Parts: sequence; structure tokens; C-alpha cells
Amino acid sequence: MTENRPKTLLAMGRQVARRLITSQVRDRLLRLADVDPDLVADDFADPAVAGALAAAEVLYTSWECPPITGDVLARAPRLRAIVHAAGSVKHHVTEACWRRGLLVSSAAAANAEPVAEYTLASILFANKRVLDIAGLYREHRTGLDLEGRFPGFGNYRRTVGVVGASRIGRRVIELLRPFELDVLVADPYLTEDLGVPHVELEELFERCDVVSLHAPALPETRHLVDAARLARMRDGATLINTARGALVDHDALTAELVSGRLHAVIDVTEPEVLPAGSPLYDLPNVLLTPHIAGSLGGELARLADLALDELSRYAEGRPLRYGVTEETLAISA
Amino acid sequence: MTENRPKTLLAMGRQVARRLITSQVRDRLLRLADVDPDLVADDFADPAVAGALAAAEVLYTSWECPPITGDVLARAPRLRAIVHAAGSVKHHVTEACWRRGLLVSSAAAANAEPVAEYTLASILFANKRVLDIAGLYREHRTGLDLEGRFPGFGNYRRTVGVVGASRIGRRVIELLRPFELDVLVADPYLTEDLGVPHVELEELFERCDVVSLHAPALPETRHLVDAARLARMRDGATLINTARGALVDHDALTAELVSGRLHAVIDVTEPEVLPAGSPLYDLPNVLLTPHIAGSLGGELARLADLALDELSRYAEGRPLRYGVTEETLAISA
Ligand SMILES: NC(=O)c1ccc[n+]([C@@H]2O[C@H](COP(=O)([O-])OP(=O)(O)OC[C@H]3O[C@@H](n4cnc5c(N)ncnc54)[C@H](O)[C@@H]3O)[C@@H](O)[C@H]2O)c1
Ligand SMILES: NC(=O)c1ccc[n+]([C@@H]2O[C@H](COP(=O)([O-])OP(=O)(O)OC[C@H]3O[C@@H](n4cnc5c(N)ncnc54)[C@H](O)[C@@H]3O)[C@@H](O)[C@H]2O)c1
Repeated sequence: MTENRPKTLLAMGRQVARRLITSQVRDRLLRLADVDPDLVADDFADPAVAGALAAAEVLYTSWECPPITGDVLARAPRLRAIVHAAGSVKHHVTEACWRRGLLVSSAAAANAEPVAEYTLASILFANKRVLDIAGLYREHRTGLDLEGRFPGFGNYRRTVGVVGASRIGRRVIELLRPFELDVLVADPYLTEDLGVPHVELEELFERCDVVSLHAPALPETRHLVDAARLARMRDGATLINTARGALVDHDALTAELVSGRLHAVIDVTEPEVLPAGSPLYDLPNVLLTPHIAGSLGGELARLADLALDELSRYAEGRPLRYGVTEETLAISA
Repeated sequence: MTENRPKTLLAMGRQVARRLITSQVRDRLLRLADVDPDLVADDFADPAVAGALAAAEVLYTSWECPPITGDVLARAPRLRAIVHAAGSVKHHVTEACWRRGLLVSSAAAANAEPVAEYTLASILFANKRVLDIAGLYREHRTGLDLEGRFPGFGNYRRTVGVVGASRIGRRVIELLRPFELDVLVADPYLTEDLGVPHVELEELFERCDVVSLHAPALPETRHLVDAARLARMRDGATLINTARGALVDHDALTAELVSGRLHAVIDVTEPEVLPAGSPLYDLPNVLLTPHIAGSLGGELARLADLALDELSRYAEGRPLRYGVTEETLAISA
């Protein structure tokens, strides 16, 4: 039992709380904090949470936490920290939180893991044409001339491009190390040496067999992948988007995919869900999933655990490990 | 240029030679060996190869090399080594080769790599239900209650079982290290500590979310996975078979897959190609591919390179790195 058990309030969607606050998480929360694990603020104006909000030193937040506005903060005079058991804090941490000097931590590092895993598996399958071949085998039910159809395919000495040296992008680069693949990275803000060539975006699109997007949705990244950049991609190359739909001009991408020139793995789209008539649902050269690369199911425990670790650090007066600042947020997800 | 360029004969299928002997491989072969790269023995009785066979010190073999029988050896008095640019040597290296004391090397270690990559990607996709979800999204084109449908899914703290501490099995264990997955291994011949719990097969089948087969086809492994072992698997667990169809009782497996209780990733079957009426082609819980996990396309270069490295060691009088002996072959692929 920690000596200092900070008064803590849960703030997130009610469905989210049901998924996130498992009995293990509940037990650990009760050990670490002075908290009512059955009280979940999904609306800070709710009178039922007013007392807990007034007393709270920490908000333990997740998806669908309402915006923590100046008005909310006025009713939370003791608040010192926001510990987020999910990825981006942009939806609930407002300007007012920064002005109050609140400590903010995010579990985006833990949420990066499943996205990087989805990406790695997609790269290995894409280079080997696994899903294309499974489709052809189902259709023809006979031996196939694979090397005639997919010259030079496979995962030996091919080139993978990572767009965005983000938490996810860096983890993808790390996970690719055991393989005999060349990796390139493009990111205008990257200054460190990540052990792989740092190139311009145009060069990356031209050289890669797989291009994987890991930049955030920002005004500057809107339609970063447009018709011109797609046209630079090699015939048969694969675009992977687990970042955000806004990064890609979907009309231009759809045209390249309908023609069969490019392949794609698409987890995020604009809009989400795609219209029922979109050709992307049925194309054999497209793997389309409904925004599942991030944490789901048992993976939520990883987010909860990271946020509990942060709560424990806060309670012991140690610095947060996954602190977020207003400055870094400008180019972050 | 090596001083000693051993007289070498290529022996493999003609189509195989066209795929394997790229211009780079050809150039390196000519540097390392005294060889006619355009002469390919796909039949040792062919008079056109008689001279080269009589002179050959090394056979550089690959798939569809005919059996090197006592009769063949009688016409190859100078033969010292068989360097195989493919996986198993069981089809062409006969009893007579061992009795002659020939050196034999195999590129099975290089052929293990793509199989391990296919397996890794399959594990990550299976735990996350990526292909199931893609199918559901295509069908429904709307938001889906994934956690209701797939409770606890994802790649956090789930258990993966490796059957067979083979070259491929060991590489799979290694490739799984970066992930937060528990790994178990079962292999009656394993004596080393591979850093993961070594358990009995029955326990492995009971505990794992994914069971991946990496044992060779031997009389003792025929239908290693039968109805009783399948029944031990957890509801929703995934069987991956990249080893050999003979390891699995396909009727029993098909019944479990048709019922929807289990999932599977199947690269090898019995027979191969499967009959056109097999339900395995169409089941949403099955990824079926036509024996593609091994080296194909650009991946053949990895096999050729390994065999050339061995040829170079032989020429320099150094020991082979991937030597095969009659004894190890008894429990090998
Ligand atoms: N599919 C999912 O379920 C899922 C889950 C989590 C995150 N995401 C998305 O993945 C992406 C990466 O998230 P993250 O948390 O790793 O990001 P992050 O906040 O860690 O990193 C963002 C990085 O992008 C780089 N960047 C900014 N502008 C760029 C540009 N124009 N070109 C290239 N790089 C640029 C910056 O270097 C910055 O460090 C985001 O789009 C995020 O929304 C998706
Ligand atoms: N799908 C493909 O394209 C492809 C390509 C290459 C190899 N393979 C297959 O993959 C499998 C593994 O090949 P490899 O080269 O890694 O094998 P290997 O020869 O390196 O290893 C075989 C190992 O299996 C173990 N073994 C023997 N009997 C066993 C049993 N009853 N239960 C558990 N383990 C047992 C032994 O420890 C032995 O070391 C083989 O079945 C091979 O035919 C498939």
C-alpha cells in the first residue's frame, strides 16, 4: 500500500470503463489511489461527480473523456495530474490544462505496440503476396504460376519506407531489424540517427516496395499521399495506412487500387465507416479493416497498466515516464 | 578468384535452374568453381552430363535433383561434396552417398527464414483476428461489436505453442521475443534450454491460443494432430501448419473448422492441391495458401547465396557451416 494514495477520479466513456477497468485494474487502482472505481465521469456537469471532481488530485482518463475546459478546472481546484489510459490526449486536454500547469501523461507508447505489430505482419504478408495468393488459390483451386505473376516477390532484400518517426514508426523500424529488408524513414522533424537512412518523402515513395504511414493527422499532413506521390510508387508496391484517413487522398488511392497497379492495407479511412459502395471493400489487392490496429480486447490491459504505473510514480513523487507537453503535442498524434 | 576452383556440376530441375541461377548467382558460381552454368543435370543418365559428372568434385543441387544413387556415384568417381541450394536433402541424398562419405550441406537454415516470417505474421494476425474482422467489415459495412464477438482478443499476454524445436521452430521462438506473448515449445528430442518452457504436447495443445507446427513428416509424426489433440485446443484457438499436411488429420481438422470452434492458417495439406470441393477454401476462419511459406521469388537468392558460401568454404578447405549427417537426418525434415 503506497503511503500517499492520491484522490483520483475516473473520466471516460461508460462503455470504455467497462472494457478497461477489469478486476485486476480495479484492485491495483484501489491499492494506489483513493478512488471510487464505480464512479465514472463521462460528463463533468453531472452533479454525481461534482464532489469527487472538487477533491480530485488526479484524473485517470481514457477514450471519450469529455474536454477538460477552464470551466471544469474551476470546479477541480486540487487537480494536479491527468493520467491517460489511451493514445492521444488532444480531445480532452485543453489549452486551460496547460495554463494550469497540470502534469499530463499518455499511454500512446503502449498503444503504439499493437499498431506496430499489425504493421509488421502486414509488411511480411504484403511482400510475400500471401493474401493475393490465398485469393487466387480459392478462385482457381489448382497449382499457380506465382513467380510469373509476382516477379521477385518475397521478403528478401526489399525496401520498406516508414513515413513519420513517431512512437509507432520507431517501433516498426525496431521490429523490422531481424529481417533482411532495407528500411528508409522520412520525417521533417527527425534529427536523431535511427540507424536507417533518413530520406526525403519523394525518394521514399520512389524506392520502396512497401510504404507505411505513421505521421499524425495535422493540417500539414492532410493528403500527404496524393495522386502525384502515389504515381511515384513502384508498380506492385503496397501502401499501408494505420495512421489516419486524412493523410491520404482516397479518390486518388482508389483509382490506383481499382487499376490494380498498387496494393494497400488500410485500417483508417475518411470517412470511417467507408460508404457501402466503396470499391475498397472488395478489391483482391486491398486488406481493409475498420480501425483495429490500436489496442482492443485484451490489449486494453496494456494501456491500463501503463497509466497505473504513471499513477504510482505520481503517488511516490517521481517524475512521470510518459509525460506530454504542449510543445511536443503540436507535431504529435 | 579462389585458387582452388572445384569442378562443379549443377543438378536440379530445369525450371528450378532458371529461377535460381540469376546473373548474380552465375557470376559468383564462375568465380568460385570450374563450372558450366548452362549445363544442368535433371537426369544423371543423360549422355550430355556424363563428362561433367565423371569430373565433378561438387554437385550444386536444388529442388528436383534426381536421386544420387549408387549407380550415379559409380559414374562420379571424383565426387566429394553435395551442396544443396534448397531445404531437405532427403529426396536426392541416398544411403549410397553416406556410404561414400560425401560431405553434404543444406540451405534449410535459409529456407527456414521465410517460413518463420510467414508464421510470425500469421500469429500476429490470428490473435488480433485481423482477417476475420476484414471479412466481417466487408460483409456488414458498418461498425462492429468486436469485443463482444472476440472476447479478450489481441496480442497481449496470450500463449503461443511451437511444436518442434526445428530450425524453423527455433527461429519462430526468436522472432517472437519482442512481443508480450508467452511461448511454449514441445519436442521429444529437445535437450537444450531455448529460454521458453519446454512442455508435453498435450499441455501445449491445452494452454495455447495459437499452436504452430514445425516438426518434420516422419512415420511418428503422421496425424500428430488428430481429433483428440484438436479437442484439447481452447475454443477460438488457431492451428498454424506450415510443416507438412501429413502431420494433421484433415478430416478431424475440417470438422473443427466447419463448426467454427477453431481457426487455422494452413499452408500445407494432404493432398496438395486440395480437392476443389474442400470446405477449407471458403471458411472465414481459415487462411489457406498453396505451400508458399518457404522460399519463392526473390527469396531463392537467399538459398543460392547460402549454398555458394558453402561452396566457397569447401574450395578453401574450411568445414561446411550447414553440414548434414545421416544421424541428424533421421529426425529432420
Ligand atoms: N489505427 C489505429 O488504431 C491507431 C492507433 C494509434 C495511433 N494511430 C495513428 O498512428 C499515427 C502515429 O501515432 P504516434 O502516436 O506514433 O505518433 P507520435 O505522436 O508519436 O509521433 C508523431 C510524429 O510524426 C512526425 N511528423 C509530424 N509531421 C510529419 C510529416 N509531415 N511527415 C512525417 N512525419 C511527421 C513527428 O516527428 C512526430 O514525432 C497517428 O496518425 C495516430 O493517429 C492509429
Ligand atoms: N511450408 C513450406 O514451404 C516449408 C518450407 C520448409 C520447411 N517446411 C517444413 O517445416 C518443418 C520444419 O522444417 P525444419 O527444416 O525447420 O526442420 P528441422 O529438420 O530443422 O527440424 C526437425 C526437428 O523436429 C523435431 N521433431 C522430430 N520429431 C518430432 C515430434 N514427434 N514432435 C515434435 N518435434 C519433433 C526434432 O527435434 C528435429 O530437430 C518440416 O515439416 C518441413 O518439411 C515447410
